[in-house]
Amino acid sequence: MTRVRVDLNISLDGRATTTDQTPEDPFGQDWQRLTAAYAATRTFRARVLGDTSGAGTTGVDDAFATRYFEGIGAEIMGAGMFGLHAHPDDPDWRGWWGETPPFGCPVFVLTSSPRPTLEMDGGTTFHFLSASPQEALERATAAAGGADVRVGGGPTTVRPFLAAGLVDDVHVAIAPIVLGSGTPFWEGLRGLEDGRDVESVVAESGTVHVSFRRRYGAR
Amino acid sequence: MTRVRVDLNISLDGRATTTDQTPEDPFGQDWQRLTAAYAATRTFRARVLGDTSGAGTTGVDDAFATRYFEGIGAEIMGAGMFGLHAHPDDPDWRGWWGETPPFGCPVFVLTSSPRPTLEMDGGTTFHFLSASPQEALERATAAAGGADVRVGGGPTTVRPFLAAGLVDDVHVAIAPIVLGSGTPFWEGLRGLEDGRDVESVVAESGTVHVSFRRRYGAR
Repeated sequence: MTRVRVDLNISLDGRATTTDQTPEDPFGQDWQRLTAAYAATRTFRARVLGDTSGAGTTGVDDAFATRYFEGIGAEIMGAGMFGLHAHPDDPDWRGWWGETPPFGCPVFVLTSSPRPTLEMDGGTTFHFLSASPQEALERATAAAGGADVRVGGGPTTVRPFLAAGLVDDVHVAIAPIVLGSGTPFWEGLRGLEDGRDVESVVAESGTVHVSFRRRYGAR
Repeated sequence: MTRVRVDLNISLDGRATTTDQTPEDPFGQDWQRLTAAYAATRTFRARVLGDTSGAGTTGVDDAFATRYFEGIGAEIMGAGMFGLHAHPDDPDWRGWWGETPPFGCPVFVLTSSPRPTLEMDGGTTFHFLSASPQEALERATAAAGGADVRVGGGPTTVRPFLAAGLVDDVHVAIAPIVLGSGTPFWEGLRGLEDGRDVESVVAESGTVHVSFRRRYGAR
């Protein structure tokens, strides 16, 4: 049965976005630090960078990176994560990930200005839709064919899904840094642990992985 | 050499206080949940409750509880932690901890309305003073005689010491719960990890202990 999953990198102070982006550095140094442990994994290097040399870390961070990609049948993301906010005037923008994005499944991009569907290499298709979380989830679940649906990001897109109780499992990788600014992930999520098993593990990198898994029957 | 230490219980969303106190339940259920793992330790039961039966947990949480009390020569706390806010009209209030408080050292209570010094059993003396963080720390350091000084709490008292760079070592015990309200601990602490070694460990209870230890020479 489809489970709805959220999987984000946050800081100790719960920031899931960073605020030091510049035109020259569109992700920013803080984003590099927030995602450094994930980006160092063998799985990230293979799946996202196409580096099949086997380079990269293979410990706890990599185990979670592998889980990130496992069993996902469809993804939902916000316009910002796809890059529409950074490239508002480019009708030919095809995402940050090149011609073979790492998703390998239908991806539903939520935007108030839908554009034509993009078929990419490697099984990824970007669909653009203006829809409520419930509607988007219905389409993604149908497309996932029994596999899981990930609500990928960013945090502003993820939050309404969580607040509406639509998410089963949450994994956050907490980088051991304090950012002081950025979208707070935890806001409005009082009691996220209710009805969920919570498990934490510390990776070799110092990243703390916290997983919330909804118990069967809990809502 | 004296190190200045901070040691707090916080939630995953970084709340170091709770907001569900009532006259009938002056600490509140959230506070019980926030501190449950610490209160279950053998060290807490012995030091704070005077339970010398040996009952209580003896794992990772207890190791940190032991460290909490080790090597402290003086403590600084806010009026709220001592209980002056909850008992504003009681000139005879002697703190929450009975006649033998667990500190066993001079305790400097910051208040805008100082009152006479209280000598308690077991080596604890409460001094009341209206002072800046720097002034309070100077007095506490002199009283500590080379041992460490703990800035005990609450978070509103602790924050100015951290912001002023006066704290060497920080330990937070993160309970695996999301509170959604309460004083945010991390606010204004961007870069707390700079110049400090950060180490995290997960206790049997699910509590995540994160320790920041200032490297010698770093400021």
